Amino acid sequence: MADKPMSRRLILTGGLAAVGGAAAATGVGVLRARDEVVENQDEPIVVEPFHGRHQAGIATVPQGHVAVLALDVAEGVDADRFAAVLRMLSHDAERLTRGEAALGDTEPQLATHPARLTVTFGFGYALFDKLDLADRRPDDFTVLPEFTVDELDPAFVGGDLMVQICSDDVTAVAHAMRMLVKDSRSIMRVRWVQRGFRQTTPVIEPGATPRNVMGQLDGTSNPTTDELDAVVWRDGPDWLRDGSTMVIRRIRAEMETWDAVDPAAKDMVIGRRNDTGAPLTGRSEHDEPDFDAVDGLRLPVIAANAHIRRARLSDGRRIFRRAYNYDDQLTPHGIPDTGLLFIAYQSDVTTFVDMQRRIDEADMLNSWVTPVGSAEFLIPPGCRPGGWIGETLLG
Amino acid sequence: MADKPMSRRLILTGGLAAVGGAAAATGVGVLRARDEVVENQDEPIVVEPFHGRHQAGIATVPQGHVAVLALDVAEGVDADRFAAVLRMLSHDAERLTRGEAALGDTEPQLATHPARLTVTFGFGYALFDKLDLADRRPDDFTVLPEFTVDELDPAFVGGDLMVQICSDDVTAVAHAMRMLVKDSRSIMRVRWVQRGFRQTTPVIEPGATPRNVMGQLDGTSNPTTDELDAVVWRDGPDWLRDGSTMVIRRIRAEMETWDAVDPAAKDMVIGRRNDTGAPLTGRSEHDEPDFDAVDGLRLPVIAANAHIRRARLSDGRRIFRRAYNYDDQLTPHGIPDTGLLFIAYQSDVTTFVDMQRRIDEADMLNSWVTPVGSAEFLIPPGCRPGGWIGETLLG
Repeated sequence: MADKPMSRRLILTGGLAAVGGAAAATGVGVLRARDEVVENQDEPIVVEPFHGRHQAGIATVPQGHVAVLALDVAEGVDADRFAAVLRMLSHDAERLTRGEAALGDTEPQLATHPARLTVTFGFGYALFDKLDLADRRPDDFTVLPEFTVDELDPAFVGGDLMVQICSDDVTAVAHAMRMLVKDSRSIMRVRWVQRGFRQTTPVIEPGATPRNVMGQLDGTSNPTTDELDAVVWRDGPDWLRDGSTMVIRRIRAEMETWDAVDPAAKDMVIGRRNDTGAPLTGRSEHDEPDFDAVDGLRLPVIAANAHIRRARLSDGRRIFRRAYNYDDQLTPHGIPDTGLLFIAYQSDVTTFVDMQRRIDEADMLNSWVTPVGSAEFLIPPGCRPGGWIGETLLG
Repeated sequence: MADKPMSRRLILTGGLAAVGGAAAATGVGVLRARDEVVENQDEPIVVEPFHGRHQAGIATVPQGHVAVLALDVAEGVDADRFAAVLRMLSHDAERLTRGEAALGDTEPQLATHPARLTVTFGFGYALFDKLDLADRRPDDFTVLPEFTVDELDPAFVGGDLMVQICSDDVTAVAHAMRMLVKDSRSIMRVRWVQRGFRQTTPVIEPGATPRNVMGQLDGTSNPTTDELDAVVWRDGPDWLRDGSTMVIRRIRAEMETWDAVDPAAKDMVIGRRNDTGAPLTGRSEHDEPDFDAVDGLRLPVIAANAHIRRARLSDGRRIFRRAYNYDDQLTPHGIPDTGLLFIAYQSDVTTFVDMQRRIDEADMLNSWVTPVGSAEFLIPPGCRPGGWIGETLLG
């Protein structure tokens, strides 16, 4: 099948409502409608379009699984050589996301079920120096400062090229990662890989907020589809127009001590009820918190250092969270290495930094979460058919 | 919701065909129909029954995700103390699989989406000595011999109590594992955890064979539903009637060298066509291989040391594979630690041992796969409401 892609029925995100059944159950098309292509055929496969003004994997309805890969460019690689490899990776991504084997794919049968596979590329700070392109790096893009709460493990920090691979199927993620890593090996080394998962349809309703490992609804205050454009995409410089920035933080959940907190106190730490996700001043998840409300003792209902108060910037700037859970090894005593792959997209990393500074200063939640990994990337815009991701910088 | 389980709509496996939509898309009910319970209510959840003659998680249509946990009982724990903890774990499993919080569940909201969660318990060889129950261990149950191809890492060998946790949602697996580990901690230590995934509906059709990381359809020659009973379940001793045995082997795939093999040679190694899964003597996946067929040069079409020939016992004894893929870390040079969590159920481990001896002697596939973990467990029967797993041995 891999060599006859045109004989299969490719269903792109937007048209799924009409398709029903298994396809509808994947819940695509909720966040953002895109083009529909239905080709003549047997077996329906669900495809997220690779081409577009923006890269896929950002506004795309979050898939159930992610692997985020950070690669480092070897010494002595120049911009032309890097561009040649990036063009190839882009081409691989284009084929794999359509359910076609990559060129030179040694397991072509694993490419035929992409399950909404997306591949998103980003450029780290040091890459620009290595490629002699420091003057193209926008001034607003900086390496995140180390925050007081951070206990960073160098194994999960930084990286030159970021590749975010998402799909509703882990086999598709694993295969795509393997093909992309193989095609990058001539000039790059793997710095880190982080894998995550999140509740998705049909386990939760389309559009519902998933829960993190601490039991909280995670992502409630995200911008709506209508608000997303203003939060996420950049106006410039020219090569970055319609691009974004990504911050990824590996945030360990201190489950043993969190478990010892009683449910009412947990709600106070967050400023929301755990069961419904409603702010302590409201009734349902998406009610706007009333930060001025006070109780009978004239104490604020949402505490001064509740998480939802600290995570909000007074000037209204926002980020778009596209987070995943992680759950890795257990110690012999059964203590889990688990937490959140906090992934956020925003037009400017400064927004994240300003938000995290407020959290770092006074958020009660800091007692139960520890950032152990941190990286930031510039996300170039999407490309048209025939183009490649990164061409606006390197083409 | 966790405290109002009866107000939710519980859908048990058998009735799903009639439910349609999101529930049908999970593909349950294909392998084995079970009872249906539909309660009065809002949000449908998909539940595999915990109670029954056999434990769940064996004949259950394989879920997309697994964590297999091996625990060791601490020195000095006697059978009564072990039984008390096992009763509690069984009770946790019963509640969690129904979508109810475990007793003392500190993240009760994570219990409400079990997504076909099953929990299956098994007893390792040494457990019987530790609990002074060596006389209850059937003679046919032995620790697997070390095979020539094995390169066992002690980190993935053995264990006293095995807990196989499966679900279509990783969050449900992670939560169940955490609750069960917490409730075992008073007398047990974690020996190993292995996690895996497999293609499932809606990514592949209900009943279709998933592919492993080497690209092969994996499980083609499994017994059908009708044949399963004779292959899997035991007649005795009394406490093990309707139980089984489980073998778990962690089999690393040597992807770098496998990739160098050309497609026709790969097909010859297995004895099947990679694209369709058909035997080299047949046309479609489930055609019976013709081991006597010869080509124009009078050479056997399915080679003497092809995998499917070596994996077949002449007396017809069989195993039931319920395997998952694993894909863990990458080296800096991009070499993956990936392969198969080969999980097999059979009435008697001798069947597996005899099959593996034939494979060990002469299977061409041995050049590209390396067993690095190995363990075997007796699987007690299921239990009725009010009972617990293990009561036939320890009650």
